[in-house]
Amino acid sequence: MESFFSPHSIVLFGASSNEQKSGNHVLRNILNYTKENVYLIHPKEDDIYGIKCYKSIFEIPVKNIDLGIIVLPVGLVLETINSCIKFGIKSIIVESATLYLKANDKDNQNLEKIREIKELLKQKKVRIMGPNSIGVYCANQDKNSFITSLIYFKRLPKLKKKNLSIIAQTGLTLSGLLLHQNYIQELGIAKIASIGNKFDINETDILDYLENDSQTDVIALYLEDIKEGKRFLSQCKRIVKKKPIIMLKSGKTEKGRKAIASHTQSLAGDYKMVEALSRQVGIINVNDFSEMFNVAKVLLNQPRPKGRNLGVISISGAGTVLASDLASEFGFDLPSLKTEQIKNLRKIFPKFAWDDIYNPLDIWAAVEKVGPQQAYEKAGKILLEQNEYDYLVYYLTAIEETEFNWQVLTKFNAKYPETAIIMGFFGGDRKLILKWREILEENLNIPTFQSISEMFKILSKISLLK
Amino acid sequence: MESFFSPHSIVLFGASSNEQKSGNHVLRNILNYTKENVYLIHPKEDDIYGIKCYKSIFEIPVKNIDLGIIVLPVGLVLETINSCIKFGIKSIIVESATLYLKANDKDNQNLEKIREIKELLKQKKVRIMGPNSIGVYCANQDKNSFITSLIYFKRLPKLKKKNLSIIAQTGLTLSGLLLHQNYIQELGIAKIASIGNKFDINETDILDYLENDSQTDVIALYLEDIKEGKRFLSQCKRIVKKKPIIMLKSGKTEKGRKAIASHTQSLAGDYKMVEALSRQVGIINVNDFSEMFNVAKVLLNQPRPKGRNLGVISISGAGTVLASDLASEFGFDLPSLKTEQIKNLRKIFPKFAWDDIYNPLDIWAAVEKVGPQQAYEKAGKILLEQNEYDYLVYYLTAIEETEFNWQVLTKFNAKYPETAIIMGFFGGDRKLILKWREILEENLNIPTFQSISEMFKILSKISLLK
Repeated sequence: MESFFSPHSIVLFGASSNEQKSGNHVLRNILNYTKENVYLIHPKEDDIYGIKCYKSIFEIPVKNIDLGIIVLPVGLVLETINSCIKFGIKSIIVESATLYLKANDKDNQNLEKIREIKELLKQKKVRIMGPNSIGVYCANQDKNSFITSLIYFKRLPKLKKKNLSIIAQTGLTLSGLLLHQNYIQELGIAKIASIGNKFDINETDILDYLENDSQTDVIALYLEDIKEGKRFLSQCKRIVKKKPIIMLKSGKTEKGRKAIASHTQSLAGDYKMVEALSRQVGIINVNDFSEMFNVAKVLLNQPRPKGRNLGVISISGAGTVLASDLASEFGFDLPSLKTEQIKNLRKIFPKFAWDDIYNPLDIWAAVEKVGPQQAYEKAGKILLEQNEYDYLVYYLTAIEETEFNWQVLTKFNAKYPETAIIMGFFGGDRKLILKWREILEENLNIPTFQSISEMFKILSKISLLK
Repeated sequence: MESFFSPHSIVLFGASSNEQKSGNHVLRNILNYTKENVYLIHPKEDDIYGIKCYKSIFEIPVKNIDLGIIVLPVGLVLETINSCIKFGIKSIIVESATLYLKANDKDNQNLEKIREIKELLKQKKVRIMGPNSIGVYCANQDKNSFITSLIYFKRLPKLKKKNLSIIAQTGLTLSGLLLHQNYIQELGIAKIASIGNKFDINETDILDYLENDSQTDVIALYLEDIKEGKRFLSQCKRIVKKKPIIMLKSGKTEKGRKAIASHTQSLAGDYKMVEALSRQVGIINVNDFSEMFNVAKVLLNQPRPKGRNLGVISISGAGTVLASDLASEFGFDLPSLKTEQIKNLRKIFPKFAWDDIYNPLDIWAAVEKVGPQQAYEKAGKILLEQNEYDYLVYYLTAIEETEFNWQVLTKFNAKYPETAIIMGFFGGDRKLILKWREILEENLNIPTFQSISEMFKILSKISLLK
């Protein structure tokens, strides 16, 4: 797998100097990673961006090449794979559309070619990712990161302390969803494999690799079908003990499966069975990509609590009521404050509000009395000292007047390493939310939510069941 | 009610020149609305911001005042209300904390004062909003808008073609949630009433007023309890025929009701009964404020479809699979494309993708072939011409290369006034999403969603059941 994620030499089929073309984006992404040992195969051009083009792979003046990337029209794919294998390449990414024959395809020549490739795959030590893959992403700390996406990336996110790796039957994770981390980096991403139609390599191969990858702390899967069910489940059962696995399994319904048949030409399997089994082995199931990334950002940036006890500090009374409703709905407890805690909280609350000091805590009166810094810091400290809360949740409205020095949350995290700290917003100035989120998520690793019901849904997914 | 929303004269108790104080924010908000006929009552100051202060309301040299606003410490509230009523004020907003006595309150003097106010309320034509209200908001087209919030608003959102009005037992809608519309104005807001603890005015009084308010097109409620159940339900039943009503009813659970008892000192009622009855009369129930605003922005900016037929155009194959899954889950149909439609779509798709032309439509191959403008515009037009889709949903990734001239969506809206057009994002550049959302939501009235499951949830709430 190293030759996919960290190749020392690359040959690209389908490079282009036309900035509108996918082959151009892939090339420029590669050149951002390295300009050495990059070979281009092109029928007409002599060079592109100063990189020499060869007419055929067999003209390249070296013997070993780690990775071949194919971004060619469908009709040229099979013979190109064939020549790559014959040349002795270790790994091939096929970004072009399907290799599979359509049910109504009468072209026996293709069938014959595919049979030949399968035969070669058995004999040679080569692996193919795709077709319909858009390849890989591998973030590097000390050198440039590597990406083979069809979308050109001017910049790529940084590795964080803990990182997610993704295996997906879609290019979205290597395009829009990765790009999304470029401004407000909520989480670190170590590796992505877009495995496409799984002609050869499937999710289990990449799982094997990620299990022992030191940069991968959480694994997320987007799967439309599961190729080797038994191997997959026993693998996951083993891996989740070390690294949480999040799965978005699509094709839950008849309609979804029909769409899959067209998108990746494979069978989706019985979703209910897949979900039941995956739950059994400890996989976290999610329903869309937002959920996937929200679950991942909490798991990566905060401790994964052992219980479901919530301590809530809200800027609004309505927030305490909604938190109570949603806690019940999602199976969380809101343990009462102890006498000691109430006594200490009274010091920051005006007397008329003393009777309203309980969990979930309406902090407004304290903010008015002692200001946001004292109110948020002391209330947080007092709740944490009770040593009973698995989650400390702040809910606030983004207005300049209630900003406080968020660094204190990092100190809380250090002192109470078993409590997850989460921040939510009841609206407020959108630009201020962006500014705050950049500090909180990117620098302080505090996950934020802009919908309180979304937050409860996500926390309930990562919390162990009662 | 006019004297609450559009007062000609105002007296403020508790004004302050200290910019840290709520009384200062309320004053500055009022002065943005008008500097004429504003009277301040203050025990020490001679004037604040050049506005003369009186020691008592009875020193004011006019006979009639529309609105009194009280932002005083709790202990001074009762006697201030009393003097306002005696002076002959029409409307009073009490922004100070609770009037109600705590269960353990032994102060018979308060009880006596409250009894006296109730007696005066019976005799005089005065109405009280609050306590624990933060008052009202009234957007004006031709003059400055009026807001009495404890948060200072440098600017306020504009009225749009259609507008939401809100009745809420929380100040959030007059602070963070209104502020949120200042950048990327997803929807227009005509009026807000923060009714607090409902000592006198409750939701039914405001509903009566909004029913005939020409600027109110949709009404949203955040209620912790319902004071006059029968009146409320028969009112809603009548109003929903003209204006949709969205309700966030909190206190669904034991815990929630306990929190309410503290927040607004009232009984929450049996949620299940409330929900069943409200559903019966046609109220749209939501679970948090994000849902409330998302439902409102679709209702205000797009037609409310009569059916549940969805046409989907997605930049990603995974998007078509997820859309199929979620359509089934939320009870939507995805009617097949007709032969004519498929024939026309083939003109923008490369031949290898011809077999994959169906609804939900994976548009990627067409975008690569004819560019985003042609692909999105023609595909949308072809689907709309089928005259079968209640919703036309675009799902795209925010990258510059796939931007198209959104104006075409406005043309679609004009030509197909019964089809709602919705836009969703599978990630992409966050800054670009902000730029696009500003154009789409603020100028073109196209609602956008960043989570596909959230979009389906919202659409299912506004769609009539099958």
